[in-house]
Amino acid sequence: MNLPDSIQSLINALERMPGIGPKSASRLAFYLLRAPDDLSLSLALALTELKTKTAFCQECFNITDAGRDRCDVCESRKRDGAVVCIVEESLDVLALERTGAFNGKYHVLQGVLNPIEGIGPDDLKIKQLVARVAKGEIKEVILATNPSMEGDATALYLQGQLKPYGVHVTRLARGLPMGGDLEYADQNTLQRALSGRQDM
Amino acid sequence: MNLPDSIQSLINALERMPGIGPKSASRLAFYLLRAPDDLSLSLALALTELKTKTAFCQECFNITDAGRDRCDVCESRKRDGAVVCIVEESLDVLALERTGAFNGKYHVLQGVLNPIEGIGPDDLKIKQLVARVAKGEIKEVILATNPSMEGDATALYLQGQLKPYGVHVTRLARGLPMGGDLEYADQNTLQRALSGRQDM
Repeated sequence: MNLPDSIQSLINALERMPGIGPKSASRLAFYLLRAPDDLSLSLALALTELKTKTAFCQECFNITDAGRDRCDVCESRKRDGAVVCIVEESLDVLALERTGAFNGKYHVLQGVLNPIEGIGPDDLKIKQLVARVAKGEIKEVILATNPSMEGDATALYLQGQLKPYGVHVTRLARGLPMGGDLEYADQNTLQRALSGRQDM
Repeated sequence: MNLPDSIQSLINALERMPGIGPKSASRLAFYLLRAPDDLSLSLALALTELKTKTAFCQECFNITDAGRDRCDVCESRKRDGAVVCIVEESLDVLALERTGAFNGKYHVLQGVLNPIEGIGPDDLKIKQLVARVAKGEIKEVILATNPSMEGDATALYLQGQLKPYGVHVTRLARGLPMGGDLEYADQNTLQRALSGRQDM
């Protein structure tokens, strides 16, 4: 038995998304088929408008509404422009904002150095970061790329690029995560937690 | 920081799908934002066309292309119309077809009896099944609803409804799944496997 084209093409499109395999894709497609019309139509509308109604802030390259040059954070006068936190993607900004512990500004690289996938410095918003730092208003740059091989390599590269400007460069702390269990921590994490131990 | 409306509404729509929580929804939305345009647009198109290009077979209520009265299986002359397999949904037909072990026809109930969610016999394609059986051409009805409480209750109800027509009613076998491990089998499955033991 072949599935009708309408369903098969939806399943094919869903399967192209990360973390959705063939089984979940069919399950979702059949769910949408039975669900009220407004669910599939509101999804379709949101997908169509996604790219046309979204733009990137020309200061920090975080996402913002189309037609705006700068995002909320960059426009805010309450935020400290002397501290800039460098992240890989907009989702990381959201995560940091949720903590409520950071009052500086951001810079979204829109990716991470990854030679295997052919992503080099020119594919990221690195030039733009250097230009921001060169203006001389930024005192500290916090490198908040992911604690992964690519994130570390990118942080190291950025450190080199920013050196000539005499800006203070820091990196997010490594160690045991809150609520974690020493017994289950991986070797690298435990090593970092040891070497980075602090006075009480 | 608030997300742009375009992204937030996509996240909201994605979150309404089963098995997609807030975190996966944002991850998918940002993935779509960075992915080539054709992915979000082909998804949007497939969603828009989903309901207009899909219809239900008027014989077995499996899905088929819009504009067709009967599905491939019902139209086929190679399939044995004397044996009908009753399933909950179209996905079950797909699973059975993949085995290649069934050459009869199907009847898709489009759901299962569930008093808690207010789904009664009139919400399923039960009347239509009884009408098919009443024609007298069907010799055996295989109840292939899920081995769950609702599936069993529905099978029991159908057995009662079909009794007057003298048709042979069977249910899919229960027991240990292939590749399963006795040690990890739940109590009910093991009980069923014992009581349904067969001569070698």
